[in-house]
Amino acid sequence: VDLPMKNMYTDEGSPLYPRLGPYFTDGRRRVDYVLAYQIQKPNSIRRQSSKFSDNNFIRRLRRSMSMRSSRAPLQPKEDPEIAAQKQRTDYHEDDKRFRREEFEENLLETGLELEKDEGSKIPGIGFLKIHAPWDVLCREAEFMKLKMPTKKVYEVKQGSNLVEKIRLFIHKVTTPLHPKVDANRPQSVKSLSHPFSREKQHLKTSIPMILILIALLYCQVYEVLKRTRCTRAKYSMGKTSAWITSLLANGVYTSAYPLHDLLYEQWASYSVFYKYQPIGLIRKYFGEKVGLYFAWLGVYTQMLIPAAIVGVIVFLYGCATVDDNIPSMEICDPRNNITMCPLCDHACSYWKLVTACGTARASHLFDNPATVFFSIFMALWAVLFMEHWKRRQMRLNYIWDLTGFGEEEEVRQRFQVTCNDEKVKLTCTDRMPAYLTTVVMMSFMILVTFAIVFGVILYRISIKAALHMSNYPVARSNIRATVKTTAAIINLIVIIIMDEIYGAIARWLNTLGEVPKTDKSYEERLIFKTFVLKFVNAFTPIVYLAFFRGRLVGRPGNYLYVVGSYRMEECAHAGCLMELCIQLCITMLGKQLIQNNLFEIGIPKLKKLLRRRKSDMEEEVNKSLQRHEKDHILGPFVGLSPEYMEMIIQFGMVTLFVASFPLAPLFALLNNIIEIRLDAKKFVMELRRPIAAKAKDIGIWYNLLRGLSKVAVIVNAFVISFTSDFIPRLVYQYMYSLDGTMHGFVNHTLSYFNVSDFQPGTDPLQPMHLGYKVDVCRYKDYREPPSSSAPYELSKEFWAVLAARLAFVVVFQNVVMLMSDFVDWLIPDIPKDISLQIHKEKILMVELFMKEEQGKRLAARDNHNQDNCTSLPSANQSPAQPRSDSYPLASDQFLIIGNAFAVFMVCGNICRN
Amino acid sequence: VDLPMKNMYTDEGSPLYPRLGPYFTDGRRRVDYVLAYQIQKPNSIRRQSSKFSDNNFIRRLRRSMSMRSSRAPLQPKEDPEIAAQKQRTDYHEDDKRFRREEFEENLLETGLELEKDEGSKIPGIGFLKIHAPWDVLCREAEFMKLKMPTKKVYEVKQGSNLVEKIRLFIHKVTTPLHPKVDANRPQSVKSLSHPFSREKQHLKTSIPMILILIALLYCQVYEVLKRTRCTRAKYSMGKTSAWITSLLANGVYTSAYPLHDLLYEQWASYSVFYKYQPIGLIRKYFGEKVGLYFAWLGVYTQMLIPAAIVGVIVFLYGCATVDDNIPSMEICDPRNNITMCPLCDHACSYWKLVTACGTARASHLFDNPATVFFSIFMALWAVLFMEHWKRRQMRLNYIWDLTGFGEEEEVRQRFQVTCNDEKVKLTCTDRMPAYLTTVVMMSFMILVTFAIVFGVILYRISIKAALHMSNYPVARSNIRATVKTTAAIINLIVIIIMDEIYGAIARWLNTLGEVPKTDKSYEERLIFKTFVLKFVNAFTPIVYLAFFRGRLVGRPGNYLYVVGSYRMEECAHAGCLMELCIQLCITMLGKQLIQNNLFEIGIPKLKKLLRRRKSDMEEEVNKSLQRHEKDHILGPFVGLSPEYMEMIIQFGMVTLFVASFPLAPLFALLNNIIEIRLDAKKFVMELRRPIAAKAKDIGIWYNLLRGLSKVAVIVNAFVISFTSDFIPRLVYQYMYSLDGTMHGFVNHTLSYFNVSDFQPGTDPLQPMHLGYKVDVCRYKDYREPPSSSAPYELSKEFWAVLAARLAFVVVFQNVVMLMSDFVDWLIPDIPKDISLQIHKEKILMVELFMKEEQGKRLAARDNHNQDNCTSLPSANQSPAQPRSDSYPLASDQFLIIGNAFAVFMVCGNICRN
Repeated sequence: VDLPMKNMYTDEGSPLYPRLGPYFTDGRRRVDYVLAYQIQKPNSIRRQSSKFSDNNFIRRLRRSMSMRSSRAPLQPKEDPEIAAQKQRTDYHEDDKRFRREEFEENLLETGLELEKDEGSKIPGIGFLKIHAPWDVLCREAEFMKLKMPTKKVYEVKQGSNLVEKIRLFIHKVTTPLHPKVDANRPQSVKSLSHPFSREKQHLKTSIPMILILIALLYCQVYEVLKRTRCTRAKYSMGKTSAWITSLLANGVYTSAYPLHDLLYEQWASYSVFYKYQPIGLIRKYFGEKVGLYFAWLGVYTQMLIPAAIVGVIVFLYGCATVDDNIPSMEICDPRNNITMCPLCDHACSYWKLVTACGTARASHLFDNPATVFFSIFMALWAVLFMEHWKRRQMRLNYIWDLTGFGEEEEVRQRFQVTCNDEKVKLTCTDRMPAYLTTVVMMSFMILVTFAIVFGVILYRISIKAALHMSNYPVARSNIRATVKTTAAIINLIVIIIMDEIYGAIARWLNTLGEVPKTDKSYEERLIFKTFVLKFVNAFTPIVYLAFFRGRLVGRPGNYLYVVGSYRMEECAHAGCLMELCIQLCITMLGKQLIQNNLFEIGIPKLKKLLRRRKSDMEEEVNKSLQRHEKDHILGPFVGLSPEYMEMIIQFGMVTLFVASFPLAPLFALLNNIIEIRLDAKKFVMELRRPIAAKAKDIGIWYNLLRGLSKVAVIVNAFVISFTSDFIPRLVYQYMYSLDGTMHGFVNHTLSYFNVSDFQPGTDPLQPMHLGYKVDVCRYKDYREPPSSSAPYELSKEFWAVLAARLAFVVVFQNVVMLMSDFVDWLIPDIPKDISLQIHKEKILMVELFMKEEQGKRLAARDNHNQDNCTSLPSANQSPAQPRSDSYPLASDQFLIIGNAFAVFMVCGNICRN
Repeated sequence: VDLPMKNMYTDEGSPLYPRLGPYFTDGRRRVDYVLAYQIQKPNSIRRQSSKFSDNNFIRRLRRSMSMRSSRAPLQPKEDPEIAAQKQRTDYHEDDKRFRREEFEENLLETGLELEKDEGSKIPGIGFLKIHAPWDVLCREAEFMKLKMPTKKVYEVKQGSNLVEKIRLFIHKVTTPLHPKVDANRPQSVKSLSHPFSREKQHLKTSIPMILILIALLYCQVYEVLKRTRCTRAKYSMGKTSAWITSLLANGVYTSAYPLHDLLYEQWASYSVFYKYQPIGLIRKYFGEKVGLYFAWLGVYTQMLIPAAIVGVIVFLYGCATVDDNIPSMEICDPRNNITMCPLCDHACSYWKLVTACGTARASHLFDNPATVFFSIFMALWAVLFMEHWKRRQMRLNYIWDLTGFGEEEEVRQRFQVTCNDEKVKLTCTDRMPAYLTTVVMMSFMILVTFAIVFGVILYRISIKAALHMSNYPVARSNIRATVKTTAAIINLIVIIIMDEIYGAIARWLNTLGEVPKTDKSYEERLIFKTFVLKFVNAFTPIVYLAFFRGRLVGRPGNYLYVVGSYRMEECAHAGCLMELCIQLCITMLGKQLIQNNLFEIGIPKLKKLLRRRKSDMEEEVNKSLQRHEKDHILGPFVGLSPEYMEMIIQFGMVTLFVASFPLAPLFALLNNIIEIRLDAKKFVMELRRPIAAKAKDIGIWYNLLRGLSKVAVIVNAFVISFTSDFIPRLVYQYMYSLDGTMHGFVNHTLSYFNVSDFQPGTDPLQPMHLGYKVDVCRYKDYREPPSSSAPYELSKEFWAVLAARLAFVVVFQNVVMLMSDFVDWLIPDIPKDISLQIHKEKILMVELFMKEEQGKRLAARDNHNQDNCTSLPSANQSPAQPRSDSYPLASDQFLIIGNAFAVFMVCGNICRN
């Protein structure tokens, strides 16, 4: 029964599965995993050859990169006190060798097969090649309760006729979009999955199983590695489950990685940017965790398409209606000869409203009723995106047979490597300093961000003041443009630089002292800290622009000052929305372009180059390098956090201030189309193949996304009601307008100021600047006129508009939240076809189980009479063979053993019944 | 190895487990389950005996109660067309008997053992007693993947010393509160759980397993019943998994129930009201679903204690500060001689503000700053409650070994019983009418509720008007009290009556046509519909009082009228909060008292009485009734929905309007202490023992609770800012008060009205009522004085206060939501000790597995030399015995078979290796 599997697993040229990469020197056993380590050469030799000492540097560099915890014994840096150092080094190296040897012995005990390769073409590095025999794989598969497809297949119900037809039609239309791999074909039959069990192997089908087992190979080998003990290791660490981690951290081995063996023309290429991703293959190659990332990125990019389209339509609507907009028409109308009060004390002078015509018209592009609709749309879009992803994740979980995979699997010790005192229970008081440091540092970093933003504001104010003072009219006319552009660019540069710094700080803070118990918790803490810092960094300037700029400016004759003589910034006449939009646009585009091009393409290339510098000298050697040597040159896989983080910040840009910048989804879409292929290239070409990590979901990222989409609702509510002029216009139209139109709105928003009320020293230097004497000037605010009993106090209109703004916030927030919850509730988390299939599988399992039981009972009845199992042929007399994992099994032996095993299984079943 | 288990299972007087209820007539096999059916007596006999025909009525009644779907063939009601009816009946009865016979055959095939008891003392009813032998239990346990404790035990780490000491201290202090059962003792060792497997039985420990198996017995037997087919059943239903449901619905059997076998003095008694519940025992007796309900109820009641305490403190604070409250002092001060405008046109007259002194003082009890604190507290309390429950649920899941139990188990066909066309795929168009009916009916019902509330309002208005008109001063002085009390009582009665009606309507709507696919979905739909209707019903009068009453009343001289001459209701001078409080109090107390006493105690007692009416005549028979006959008299178990629903509505009362009624938690607490024991009594004494249903969580109820606690935040924000006078007071204090105190607040809230501005016909009939001529009167509103340019328009103060109110809503809502999310995030869902234990278990499992593997390999090496398993003793030659489930196994046989099985297991394991 099992013959084909074994056959394929060892046969070199199976038609079903191509030759799977490199082999042991016997040419038969596959290399499943590689551990690299430094070879202890006699010191004299190392000192002699200059080549080696040079290499030593690279080695040390690489080690310091691949090891996070640097508590490993220090290597001698230079030559002082050579003798003592030498001895120490020798001692350490010997110790490492001993530990390696013990570890290797233990590995052999678990049934793995090893081959050493110390004479490789990369000098000073030894490789330990590991091969996992069939039986070890089976044992691990059983232990990990891997679900395997069984022989039992069932028809997948494709819904009613109409639905089925639509599905087929869609599939036909999108055929060119699908990658050319088998996995994506819609299947009409599916085979039943069941946790792998060696005893019930007769249930299993042969062909897919071998594929899956091989795909999960790395994962399994890693499991074995983690479990294998090394008691001679320096620090005895009680019960741990990740010995390999500690060995790596202590420098016993320098790196551990499985091998790259395939490249995907169907995926990691820009020429296929319009196609779906072959998620199934990605998952088989990189494991579920990476597969989920790319699936998520795909869903996100796909969902951006409708958002981008609606965003463009909203923008075009703004462009189309700019000439029908009554308020900007009124501002631009030269007949409305309104004299405005000076915008600063003393230095500025009166100005004509008609000069603000340009910004007023531009503002309308982003500040029109369609924007309100768009931000509601985007809030719902975010919810739909989350729902869509949940369903997709569920579907992937089902297809990948992860439905039974519990979360507890993740609980692993991490920081065993750092301390002997792992057992020492850390109490609250011990942890307090670390917590305090974290909180203080985080607060400090956030304050630094605020300070930087404040610095940029001061820069803007002072430059503006300086330019105001200057007598060159040309300089003055370009004031706004110059200041805005330079300030935005400074902001951008600061954001990008601080991003890197904050990342490092978050990592440092995380290793500081609050020893987390598991890998997952460690990662989540790091992500959370990094997210907070990067988020604050990216959004502080934008939040300032949206909500604080131009709020507390005072009024003509009584302007507010900060830090001595700096006046608070004011927005352009038509509101801050325009400037917010420019800032968003620059930040988004700049960040994406620079971070993508420089950091994601440039730096890895540079690093690779640096790493190959030495090897380039030996170009001829490089050509003949074996796969495991080639992969050693690649960079290590450092996790998905940076990729996710970038996307989350982008998601924030797309949803948080979408009310002010409807083109954001479009920019995000364009970026992501490139991003997918970029990441793909990086994973396939630039990095070592990561260990296939299992994961059911995207973890904390989902929570962050959810949090962002919640915050987005309230932020958009505030942007619409406070930053844009939407509410004042509405209030005017329904409360004050005489004919129900917007005519007279501009006049209504302007208060009166009697120039005789200027306090001494605040009146303009050039009162006759406009050519006539001004008695009453106007300014944009709702205040009582000079004739009132309380002149320049906030007027009734102000309070009415404020009440309306706040009412809008309350209504908007609650309506959108209600709609979101409704959508969330309406869309089932598990797609209907999947839940149907799960149900069907369950019934099939029941039937299978009952049939088996009945078979057993019938056999039992028969045996009752026979009452003897010794009368069976002698083939079942050697049933122990297949379990003797400790014997090195060459592939030709497999056939015999497999045969015996199969016969034993059959006999055993009969015998037992 | 297994001997003690088998022994105990059949032994009658084991010291460990007491005699477990009734047995088959052989006195050895336990009755595990009972199916009841009607015996087909010859028609003549039935017609002859009056006793029987009387009994027939009860039988029919019972059937119509126990069957939800009433499509079963109708029984003849009276005597017309006797012949045809008789024939039909005969045909049906024969059909049923055939199907019963086939079903019983199939049951025997599955290995169950049956005994018929048609000569029971309840005439006309036959009983089919079912016994599940040991092997069937084991098979089912394996199939259901029940987790069983193994022999492997490990020490539970009790945290650090200090934590441990505190825990011990708390346990010592609360000892009298714990029920006197073993299960609740804190254990220092826990045994490892593993899915039950017959092959690995040597892993298992003996004693707890038998207890658990027996506890889960009913569940397992029910599983078998569900699976057993009855192909002769009238409607062939494809692949179904709940045949028993259809047999019940078609009247083949009248009822199916396991037996009550224990009563819990430690639980179902009012005398233990102060104790914790023995949740472990409840779960063992009733199954996880009921266990979770009582655990939830316990957690809720427990959490109500702090809420009640804080509520009482807040109330006492109100009482204590009532004399220091400046606004009410000002109102009560006779020196403030303020003349108020008439409260209605024409009929009413001027009045003195000082007469409102009483209500103003009373209002302060519920309208003070402590209330704001309390509603924030309660919002957080709700979140804490949810979190606490999540953790408790997680802990129970762990203790009950449900962590691996997937949700898919729940997917069951339900409506197979109703139609042959189960296979006919219902498309959207088919479902549309049902959906439409549901929506229309629901809307109509909600409208009816609104209409009723409006009717009560009209009643209130008209009575008030009538009393105003009357000339008896006594009547007039009692106006408010009379009207309020009668209206509130009418509301209460309407609510209680409509509650029942709405429950029935929801049930009807749910069966209407939108055929749901699973039991769970059916139940959830029903719950959702019932919840919406009952919620609207209970809260509409309260919402009206809180947010609509007294809002649109107009102003003196220009009062608003509805439906001709009915003036809109106004609140008392100090706001509606007081009336809201009275309404809440009456609704809550009345609902709880009436529903508890009448519906939960009275009606079940009445029903039981009715059911026993016949049996009472045969008192002497009753005494000698067997357990299964006694249980047959009890009412069927109809699910937990009514209990949950009651609690959810109460939870709504406690959280939604808590700002207006801080004593609500106290009342709820008092009610729940009784409720727990009441429900316990009902479940143990009044109802048949339900099938132990498995459940991991409380399902849709959790979502409803979560939804309510979200709504509570916004509702409380509105109650504080709009219903109470909190915001106007704050605004006055910080914006208008001259000395920063509340002095002058009352004056500030009153606007001026010039009596000359009364429109003709609206001026008071008795202008000289107060004894002097009034020129200017005051009314409570923020409007411009008569001297203003826009007299009686809303003033600037109005808009300022409105803005402040809305700002408060925005701030309150977002702050509380943020705090809730923070608390949610801060408290891990899985308690730390549980996650540690899970981790520990995982490591132990790995070790166990590896040890086993190693043992196998060692054995394999040995066998390699020995190469023969025939040399083992001959005891392993009869391994088939224990699987012959179909042979009736008497208890004395068990010993032998168990012995043989054990030897076989040991030998088999060796042999296989």
